[in-house]
Amino acid sequence: GEQITISEYLLTRLEQLGVTSVFGVPGDFNMRECPLPRVDYIEDHPRIDWIGNCNELNAAYAADGYARVKEHSIGVVVTTFGVGELSAMNGIAGAFSEMVPVLHIVGVPSTVQLKNKPMLHHTLGDGRFDAYTKAAEQITVSQATLMNKTHAAAEIDRILTDCITRARPVYLTIPTDMVAEKIPAKRLQVPLSRTPPPNDPDVEKYVLDRIAELVEEASKDIVILVDACAIRHDVRQEINDLLTKTRFPVYSAPMGKTAVSEAHDRYGGIYIGSISDPSIKDKVENANLILSIGALKSDFNTGMFTYSVPTSRTIELHSTHTQIRHALFPGIGMKQLLPKLTSHLRQFHEGASQLPVPHYKLDVPKEQDDKISHAFFWPRVGQFFQKKDVVVAETGTSSFGILDVPLPEQSVFLAQILYGSIGWSIGITLGAALAARDKQLGRTILFVGDGSFQLTVQELSTMIHSKVTPIIFVLNNKGYNIERHLHGMDRKYNDIVNWKWTSLLTTLGDTDGTLSNSYTVRDKAGLDKLLNDAEFAKADKIQLVEVILDKYDTPRGLQVAADIGEKLAKQALGQV
Amino acid sequence: GEQITISEYLLTRLEQLGVTSVFGVPGDFNMRECPLPRVDYIEDHPRIDWIGNCNELNAAYAADGYARVKEHSIGVVVTTFGVGELSAMNGIAGAFSEMVPVLHIVGVPSTVQLKNKPMLHHTLGDGRFDAYTKAAEQITVSQATLMNKTHAAAEIDRILTDCITRARPVYLTIPTDMVAEKIPAKRLQVPLSRTPPPNDPDVEKYVLDRIAELVEEASKDIVILVDACAIRHDVRQEINDLLTKTRFPVYSAPMGKTAVSEAHDRYGGIYIGSISDPSIKDKVENANLILSIGALKSDFNTGMFTYSVPTSRTIELHSTHTQIRHALFPGIGMKQLLPKLTSHLRQFHEGASQLPVPHYKLDVPKEQDDKISHAFFWPRVGQFFQKKDVVVAETGTSSFGILDVPLPEQSVFLAQILYGSIGWSIGITLGAALAARDKQLGRTILFVGDGSFQLTVQELSTMIHSKVTPIIFVLNNKGYNIERHLHGMDRKYNDIVNWKWTSLLTTLGDTDGTLSNSYTVRDKAGLDKLLNDAEFAKADKIQLVEVILDKYDTPRGLQVAADIGEKLAKQALGQV
Ligand SMILES: Cc1ncc(C[n+]2csc(CCOP(=O)(O)OP(=O)(O)O)c2C)c(N)n1
Ligand SMILES: Cc1ncc(C[n+]2csc(CCOP(=O)(O)OP(=O)(O)O)c2C)c(N)n1
Ligand SMILES: [Mg+2]
Ligand SMILES: [Mg+2]
Repeated sequence: GEQITISEYLLTRLEQLGVTSVFGVPGDFNMRECPLPRVDYIEDHPRIDWIGNCNELNAAYAADGYARVKEHSIGVVVTTFGVGELSAMNGIAGAFSEMVPVLHIVGVPSTVQLKNKPMLHHTLGDGRFDAYTKAAEQITVSQATLMNKTHAAAEIDRILTDCITRARPVYLTIPTDMVAEKIPAKRLQVPLSRTPPPNDPDVEKYVLDRIAELVEEASKDIVILVDACAIRHDVRQEINDLLTKTRFPVYSAPMGKTAVSEAHDRYGGIYIGSISDPSIKDKVENANLILSIGALKSDFNTGMFTYSVPTSRTIELHSTHTQIRHALFPGIGMKQLLPKLTSHLRQFHEGASQLPVPHYKLDVPKEQDDKISHAFFWPRVGQFFQKKDVVVAETGTSSFGILDVPLPEQSVFLAQILYGSIGWSIGITLGAALAARDKQLGRTILFVGDGSFQLTVQELSTMIHSKVTPIIFVLNNKGYNIERHLHGMDRKYNDIVNWKWTSLLTTLGDTDGTLSNSYTVRDKAGLDKLLNDAEFAKADKIQLVEVILDKYDTPRGLQVAADIGEKLAKQALGQV
Repeated sequence: GEQITISEYLLTRLEQLGVTSVFGVPGDFNMRECPLPRVDYIEDHPRIDWIGNCNELNAAYAADGYARVKEHSIGVVVTTFGVGELSAMNGIAGAFSEMVPVLHIVGVPSTVQLKNKPMLHHTLGDGRFDAYTKAAEQITVSQATLMNKTHAAAEIDRILTDCITRARPVYLTIPTDMVAEKIPAKRLQVPLSRTPPPNDPDVEKYVLDRIAELVEEASKDIVILVDACAIRHDVRQEINDLLTKTRFPVYSAPMGKTAVSEAHDRYGGIYIGSISDPSIKDKVENANLILSIGALKSDFNTGMFTYSVPTSRTIELHSTHTQIRHALFPGIGMKQLLPKLTSHLRQFHEGASQLPVPHYKLDVPKEQDDKISHAFFWPRVGQFFQKKDVVVAETGTSSFGILDVPLPEQSVFLAQILYGSIGWSIGITLGAALAARDKQLGRTILFVGDGSFQLTVQELSTMIHSKVTPIIFVLNNKGYNIERHLHGMDRKYNDIVNWKWTSLLTTLGDTDGTLSNSYTVRDKAGLDKLLNDAEFAKADKIQLVEVILDKYDTPRGLQVAADIGEKLAKQALGQV
């Protein structure tokens, strides 16, 4: 049969998975046939673009952002041995934590060198050539090193299957002498399967009956709560079908934001324990039954563990198990369960509609002051969003502020609420914007704090070069506002160096100023004017908006979270 | 006895080790007493400065640079759980590889949380709270987690002792509830010892006699070759004493550059196997005996393994062992051996002086062309260096070009020739400049490629804020020149986005332009003029010089290394 190189095999698999952009930084070990004929498999690939990042951490973030928006695909980051891969490590760990399918390809020394262990550059100098792989094992679900061509295809398929079915990062090292080894192409005819293992039919039947019973008992007072894993494990369509059939009110945890359209008439807003809007808290916590789908109960995602929904009134659906009240059903996954549940349940249209769901909206407050407060800013930008926008929020005041803002239908919301690594959103915006272009989504709009921006700012350069045109709101509040509120209101270490934010784009790549626009808005009128400007809203250039905010002002949600955190810390020390 | 907090204990130890600056990025788990009285041990310390970096990788690099220049001290970097520490990982690995004593302090959740494993932010979401420590074990020589106050002081002392005696990074995690726990201060009265374990007297005696014999047999034709570990394991003074006594000619490997003053009258230049200047190659390889001190035989440091010095004519001194021809003497370390060797050997003044050592110098060539070539640039900047300058070279054309330039006495040379992580030099420059200020050294002068600069550029901001005033030469050659020569001369992935380099300083912190100067030099005359400018040379502001170079032009040494590399790769594939 046909023979192709290992590199071609891998790239064909990526293409089958819908990958069109691969991120990374070159290095002398990665994916090049060396010395001759000097083929470069990625650069020469007709349908996969090489996106050269400024550094590897940013590349990993970009792959994460690409995977989140692209869906049914994966993000790919290519780095070089040691220096490159370790630089990417925090980005890969974030993808692990937040369940994003990312393939990390590392170019490593030849199989001969891996055995003989000469003191090569990029090594630790002590002959431990496996040290980097051991580190990677901590933050990826599968690893493979292609040490011989016989198993190469099977190994590639194994880790890619783990990547897509478990929605977590995987790690692949390719020795330089394996890059161009020939292997049979045959396996490529069978596409990789993303179907999770089937549920046991008997247990599944039992579970369905039991849920139906509880639903009947709850006499229509049932709410659905969607969360991160509904997105990651790909049950959005299934949830929508369930909603159409039952018309149960639906709420979302922060990490599930946009899993169900926030414009849906049965959507009631964000539930986040004690940080929730009181009317939402009331509806969710007092329902007779809560059907929780894809919950991920991390501290910030649950209002610092302040959920007040007793297990006895909860059914939890997960990707690998189901829990009905206190009973656990391992192996009963929601991807197959949900459609069956939808057909199993009767229509509740009339009944459920008797439970009114107040429309989730956020009005722009009337404030005397000209200054842009958080209370003003978030509802005001809320009016600016359009259908299909991709909205990215960095950890900090942004990730809290945005929660209260309903997003339009078909919009996509990205934030890293569990892992919370600042600087993430810049790389994410690059990857997200490229995926959005593939998927013909709308604008990519980023909200990032001045402190976070400083970690990864150089990736603006790659955005300019890749011709993506996000709108970037930089919240200039003179430092680490969230950290001030969590600890050290006036600590010097929470101050940052003020930058000339509006010069960044022209300095970092748009040297003649034709590809970008930058603005500073200092007051409400200035913000209004810009947001009402049709040219601005078109977003056909990359645009950066510096928003001048008060140093101490903070969104309501963050304030409450800080207060709860303080209380918990005192309790832990026995001070309360 | 007196009771102090664990934080105070640690900081006092750091102070005893001469630490005056600590680098890092704040996070809500690190080194703060929480919730009350909200003491911040580092910010409040009267004699240790907190240097807030833009990101953690840069902070780790800065700690590395600080340790390299400060000597007899260590670099310290403080990060937060997961997101911060993993971001720093590549910087710590580089310090491991190149043997630099760095302490990585990580603020982690409370001891209770470490046991109960709630789903906190910054975790992997699966309860593995030890994953980050396991990763750190791969790239540090000791680790400690302060889980109780009883062992805290001993644990701190253990890892700090490992750090200073083994000259490698160590890892310390401090749970939030341990930060302010009280412990006895008593141990602090005994300073930590950096003395390596004593050599066995009998073996040492035998080794000394044997070396003396070989020295006699070699009838005065003996050269000394110094390398990285002579610096890292602190035997520079001992080598100087040996030189004064014997007057043997001395050469240096690239990583040993400035271990012996390059202005020394018995210093002959850099030996780097087949890449060496032919006259140097000849002298070293044809000596009757080579006394190699602190060798580190990595690929780039040995001219791609092209040393041509037979073991039968070599004596190698290392920190933990000695090798005389083929015989190994484990446990005989050079720190104690060298002074004894110096007194053991007779004076060779007359004899050794008969071996002339051509003075190591590099003339500025006469070239017709106006363009700044590498052949012109390096000798020309060589004339600019002054006594006590700290010279930093990034991996790429810079680290090769600088090798041929003799540096003045008491100057310090920094490059990462073994680990070779690009972007390193920017963080290094910050740390080096702060240490140079402490030690009253001269100017800090950096040579960095345009490609490398992009990885870590934001740290200019911290330099401005910390009021250090390095001179930064950015070699603008439109991309990854070294990679072009190693592979892919015209590959697009070796091109980078051109930046407005001279706007960087005003954009990233010197907003009113009073603290910095930036220049572009396009031709020989322009470079001459700038280097002759006394104001420029004073270096009392931070200065950035963009040097316009040809896209393909490269230093001689790099060209030769690329050719050798190509040949080796062909051999490996059986093509030759
Ligand atoms: C990589 C990383 N380093 C450090 C932290 C700790 N941290 C969390 S939020 C934050 C400050 C964010 O400041 P900014 O982006 O300005 O946000 P805002 O002022 O809007 O809250 C810091 C330092 C982190 N989460 N991730
Ligand atoms: C962190 C890291 N990523 C990638 C590499 C691979 N690499 C080695 S040198 C180099 C290019 C350096 O380019 P530049 O700084 O412009 O140097 P020059 O053009 O002067 O050679 C790259 C990408 C590396 N060594 N380290
Ligand atoms: Mg801020
Ligand atoms: Mg370059």
